[in-house]
Amino acid sequence: MKTLQVALGERSYPIYIGEGLLAQAALLAQHIQGPSVCIVTNTTVSPLYLEQVMAALSFDFECASVVLPDGEQYKNLDVLNQVFDQLLTSRFSREVTLIALGGGVVGDMAGFAAACYQRGVPFIQMPTTLLSQVDSSVGGKTAVNHALGKNMIGAFYQPQCVIADTDTLKTLDDRQLSSGLAEVIKYGLINDLNFFEWLEQNIVGLVAREPALLAEAIARSCQDKADIVAEDEREHGARALLNLGHTFGHAIETGMGYGEILHGEAIAIGMVMAADLSRREGWLTEVDVTRIKALLIAAGLPVETPAGMTAAGFMELMSVDKKVQAGVIRLVLLKAVGQAIMSDDYEPAKLAETLAHFEH
Amino acid sequence: MKTLQVALGERSYPIYIGEGLLAQAALLAQHIQGPSVCIVTNTTVSPLYLEQVMAALSFDFECASVVLPDGEQYKNLDVLNQVFDQLLTSRFSREVTLIALGGGVVGDMAGFAAACYQRGVPFIQMPTTLLSQVDSSVGGKTAVNHALGKNMIGAFYQPQCVIADTDTLKTLDDRQLSSGLAEVIKYGLINDLNFFEWLEQNIVGLVAREPALLAEAIARSCQDKADIVAEDEREHGARALLNLGHTFGHAIETGMGYGEILHGEAIAIGMVMAADLSRREGWLTEVDVTRIKALLIAAGLPVETPAGMTAAGFMELMSVDKKVQAGVIRLVLLKAVGQAIMSDDYEPAKLAETLAHFEH
Repeated sequence: MKTLQVALGERSYPIYIGEGLLAQAALLAQHIQGPSVCIVTNTTVSPLYLEQVMAALSFDFECASVVLPDGEQYKNLDVLNQVFDQLLTSRFSREVTLIALGGGVVGDMAGFAAACYQRGVPFIQMPTTLLSQVDSSVGGKTAVNHALGKNMIGAFYQPQCVIADTDTLKTLDDRQLSSGLAEVIKYGLINDLNFFEWLEQNIVGLVAREPALLAEAIARSCQDKADIVAEDEREHGARALLNLGHTFGHAIETGMGYGEILHGEAIAIGMVMAADLSRREGWLTEVDVTRIKALLIAAGLPVETPAGMTAAGFMELMSVDKKVQAGVIRLVLLKAVGQAIMSDDYEPAKLAETLAHFEH
Repeated sequence: MKTLQVALGERSYPIYIGEGLLAQAALLAQHIQGPSVCIVTNTTVSPLYLEQVMAALSFDFECASVVLPDGEQYKNLDVLNQVFDQLLTSRFSREVTLIALGGGVVGDMAGFAAACYQRGVPFIQMPTTLLSQVDSSVGGKTAVNHALGKNMIGAFYQPQCVIADTDTLKTLDDRQLSSGLAEVIKYGLINDLNFFEWLEQNIVGLVAREPALLAEAIARSCQDKADIVAEDEREHGARALLNLGHTFGHAIETGMGYGEILHGEAIAIGMVMAADLSRREGWLTEVDVTRIKALLIAAGLPVETPAGMTAAGFMELMSVDKKVQAGVIRLVLLKAVGQAIMSDDYEPAKLAETLAHFEH
C-alpha cells in the first residue's frame, strides 16, 4: 500500500493506494469518528463490493446504504435527495460518516450530500474506477449537474481520506478504463513531461491492466493532483490548469446529454481541441498535436467530436462555463507538451477556426 | 444608521441598521465586487421593494431577479432550483453576487443558493422582516427543509454584509411582527436579563411599532447574536444556545406542515415548553414561567401547542433534530431567566411530563 498526503492544514488527509483495501476494516474505521455510516453507491458497484464494505463496518458501526442509479444523467438534485431521504429515514445525526463507494458520479454526489446534510458531516472516498482514483476523489470538488450546465451546483468539501483499492479496476469495462486514462494523460500534458513520456512507453501495458503499471500511474497522478490542490484549494490560480480539455469537454457532455459520452472520453476530445487551438496560436507544432492524439488513441480514446456538435453549439455551451470571467471564456491551453497555461488572450478568430475544424 | 460588526476573521462583515437603507445605492455597491447581481425575493416582497432595489443597482450592474413563492412550505430543493435556473439562464459566472431581499425563508434559500452556485459566490442579506433582521440574516446559517426535517440540507456560508432597513417593518403584518419579537425575547432569555427586563417595559411600544424602540431591539439582538457567532461560528458550543425553543418549535413546524404556523410562533411555544421542563427540573420557579408567558402573550404570540401535537408525535419529530448526539436529544434549557444551558442530562421522565402537559 502506498500512502500520499493532501496537505491542506487542518483539512489535510491521506490517500491510500493498493490491493485489497476495501476489506481492511481497521484502515477504514480509523477515519470514522461517530457511531454510524451511510454508504452511497450505485446499481453497478453495489453487487460487486457493497456487501464486502458493509461486512467490514457492521461490527463497529450502525450501517445504512443508498444505491443510486448509475450514470452521469442521474447526477442531479432530484437523485441527490434520495441520499437525504435515506439519512433522515435512518435518523442519522450530524455524527454520521458518508462513504462514497463508486466512480466519479457517486463521489461527487456523496461528497455534496455530506457537505449539505445538517450543514456538513464527514465523508470518505472509496473510488472504484480509474477516473475517480486518479482525479475526482482527490481535491474536494463535489457537485451535481443542472440541465443548463455541468457541475454547476456544488461545494468545495474535503474527505477524511481516500481509499483507492486497485483490485476494483479488474471489474471495470474497457471504456471506463480508457476514460480514466484520459485524466492520467492530462497530468502529463499539464506539467509533467517525464510522466507523459513514461505513459507513451507504457500505454500498452496500462491498457492491458498490468497491476504494477496501474498502481504507478495512479500514485503519480494523485501526487500531481495533491500538489496542485495543496497550493490552490479553491481554484484561484494553478488548480484551474487541471481543467485542461474540460471547457470543451463539458460542452460536449452537456450538448450530447449526460450519460451519452463518458467524462474521460469528452476530456480526451477536449484536450485535442485545446492542442489544436494551441497549435493555431503557434505554441505547439503539428508533431506535438499528432503525438498527443497518438497517445490518446493508444489509450482507446476518441479524438474527434461526436456528430451533432456545431461550432455555434460549442460557443453557446462554453459561455456558461465556470471559468468565464468578464464575459471572456478562459481556456487552459498548452505552451508545450508538459506546460499548460490559463489564457484569456488567445485570438477569438483562432478559437472559431478550432470550433469550425471540429464541427460535426 | 447603526453599524455593527460580525467578527469572523477574513469572513467578517458589517450589519447596517437604519431607515431608508434599501435605496442607498452606494452602501450596497461597496459590497459588490463583480459585474452582475441576482436579487432573490418572493411574491409578497417584490411588489413592495424590488423595483427600488433594482433601480439602485441597475446603473452599475447587470441585474436579474427571481421571485419565489412566499412561505416556509416552499423552502425546499425544488424551489431552490428556480434560483439556479435564473442564474444559468442569465449566464451569470462565479462573479455574480446574490442579494436576498425578503424574510428568513428568502435569506436561507438565497444564501444556500450562493453557497452552492458554481461552488460558491458572494451574497448580501437585505432582510425585510423583524425575524430575519434580528436572527436569520446574521450568522451564516443557510438551508432548505426536507419533508422529514427542517433545515436539514444547508451550509454555513457568511454574507458580505447585512442591510436591515427598518422602514420595511411598516408593511409587515401583525403576525409577522410578533413572530420576530419571539426571537428578540429569546436573546433576553438566553443570556441578557437586562434586555429581557427592557423588553418587559417596552413591549407595548414595540407592538405599536415605535421606530426608535424597534431599532434599539434590532441592534441589541444583532449584537447579542454577532457576539455568539464570533465565538462559535459552526455551533460546536455556545451558538447552540441560540436554539432555545427550537427543538420543540421545529417539531411543531414539521408536525403541522410547513407554512401552517410561523417560525416565531413555533419558537414562542417551544420556549414555553423549555421553560416548563426547566421548572420541572427545579431550575425555574412558577413565577419565572408565568413571567415568560406574559411577555410572549403581550408580544402577540401563542403559548399553547396547536391541536394535533401529541407527546408521541413530539418524540418522533424531535429525534431527527440536528442536536441529537449519541441518541440523546440535547435541549437548550433555562437555569434562570437570562441564563440558558445546553443539557442532555435532564430526566427523561420530566421531558415526558412536559410533552404530556402540552399534548393537544
